[in-house]
Amino acid sequence: MKIYQHKTQYYETDQMGIVHHSNYIRWFEEARTDLMEQLGMGYDRMEAEGIISPVLEVNCQYKSMTRFGETVSIETRVEKYNGIRLELSYEVKNAETGEIRAVGNSKHCFLDREGNLLSLKHADIPAHNLFLSAMQKH
Amino acid sequence: MKIYQHKTQYYETDQMGIVHHSNYIRWFEEARTDLMEQLGMGYDRMEAEGIISPVLEVNCQYKSMTRFGETVSIETRVEKYNGIRLELSYEVKNAETGEIRAVGNSKHCFLDREGNLLSLKHADIPAHNLFLSAMQKH
Amino acid sequence: MKIYQHKTQYYETDQMGIVHHSNYIRWFEEARTDLMEQLGMGYDRMEAEGIISPVLEVNCQYKSMTRFGETVSIETRVEKYNGIRLELSYEVKNAETGEIRAVGNSKHCFLDREGNLLSLKHADIPAHNLFLSAMQKH
Amino acid sequence: MKIYQHKTQYYETDQMGIVHHSNYIRWFEEARTDLMEQLGMGYDRMEAEGIISPVLEVNCQYKSMTRFGETVSIETRVEKYNGIRLELSYEVKNAETGEIRAVGNSKHCFLDREGNLLSLKHADIPAHNLFLSAMQKH
Repeated sequence: MKIYQHKTQYYETDQMGIVHHSNYIRWFEEARTDLMEQLGMGYDRMEAEGIISPVLEVNCQYKSMTRFGETVSIETRVEKYNGIRLELSYEVKNAETGEIRAVGNSKHCFLDREGNLLSLKHADIPAHNLFLSAMQKH
Repeated sequence: MKIYQHKTQYYETDQMGIVHHSNYIRWFEEARTDLMEQLGMGYDRMEAEGIISPVLEVNCQYKSMTRFGETVSIETRVEKYNGIRLELSYEVKNAETGEIRAVGNSKHCFLDREGNLLSLKHADIPAHNLFLSAMQKH
Repeated sequence: MKIYQHKTQYYETDQMGIVHHSNYIRWFEEARTDLMEQLGMGYDRMEAEGIISPVLEVNCQYKSMTRFGETVSIETRVEKYNGIRLELSYEVKNAETGEIRAVGNSKHCFLDREGNLLSLKHADIPAHNLFLSAMQKH
Repeated sequence: MKIYQHKTQYYETDQMGIVHHSNYIRWFEEARTDLMEQLGMGYDRMEAEGIISPVLEVNCQYKSMTRFGETVSIETRVEKYNGIRLELSYEVKNAETGEIRAVGNSKHCFLDREGNLLSLKHADIPAHNLFLSAMQKH
């Protein structure tokens, strides 16, 4: 699995002279989207099948400051998955030095278009198996 | 018509120590939404009726810098409207001093859910009349 | 203490048709800024004195979806404060119905311009006393 | 010169199901930053030398809708440059099909840390020469 990279942009900075903390939550989403694509189940494919995966919870601990122009790597891992709930963890590092910028996690469920809770085990077996195998890999 | 006000937020600043220029484009949308609500045709109502109003063009000229914590007023005017195309202008000022921060405009059309061009004159007569009268007011 | 309100904007929505989850983290900041102003120590004043207050950790649990046009209230409380670390909690509700949209918290420290950890107890006694009294109020 | 590419993210979409129009203004900045790096004068280097380059004006015409997951290419050209003012143009295309998504331009000046207008011709001769040669290339 290739680790996702993000180049920080000027519009992500704030007047403290660093990347604003809310952007890390967006980077988690970027890395999550990338992971799903690498697993072969792009989020656009899931949405096309009528499955959406809202965020139930997100957490981020900021360890050091990220500056404009820096490239960060975001490593995403499937921590828990049972067909109904998915928990991912993220590690954000300076891509060059490896210095940890932040760690975090997010929790998700799966819904159909009407907002009903889905079990991927029944609703999307290929996706289910991919999440299972991604969880077991580490 | 009450002039829309926006209080600038920390997350809107960049490392130049001022509000990032992209936010003004979002403020135009805030002010536009507010104008439509004041006219009695909230954008959510139009979307509920299946009418969307994409932005065709946007322009902003930055006159002075906006700082964190400042409240800006954004005056929106219907410059042109013919049932098919809508053109709005915006004037962003420091709400206290009246100093001009930026001026701009945006152009819009109207589409149905399938993406077909609509004439509001036929698709939404109350909205049509409201835009017409808003245009003539100044 | 007046509870902060935020009107959700179109640019805050995503293609799920709801407000994107990253915006809640920004609303926490809006509400935090507002609390500090109400306490009489606007964040701009602290920055002018050379004190910055970075976010060490942020957490948000999403309870129900927020839609475009909705006004949310965000109640902020000082949960813990010892001069060096500050912990705030947030409760986001639909301002009309009171339905809970999200709960969360954030942790902060205080730094001088050179990035050295500060104790507000020494660096800004008025701010220190205000945080202390805000903590004890509930 | 390599043409800049941007992969659209979920958080860039709005409830119209397309990328929100304000993001294109941010992509212009991404492409501008990338161009300057390719020219050998990264924006961080200019800021380190105390030169900032605020946006005086920005314009964007939206030609077709950009969807989540799509990669766009953004071609940036130096249209005008005289040492004091810089004008850039942008062409946003679907990176695969070449379909034009938007065209736009931005105008900039150069300031020192105190906010005084600079002529790059005197303040940063290498940058001046690079802009001149970039302008003449097309």
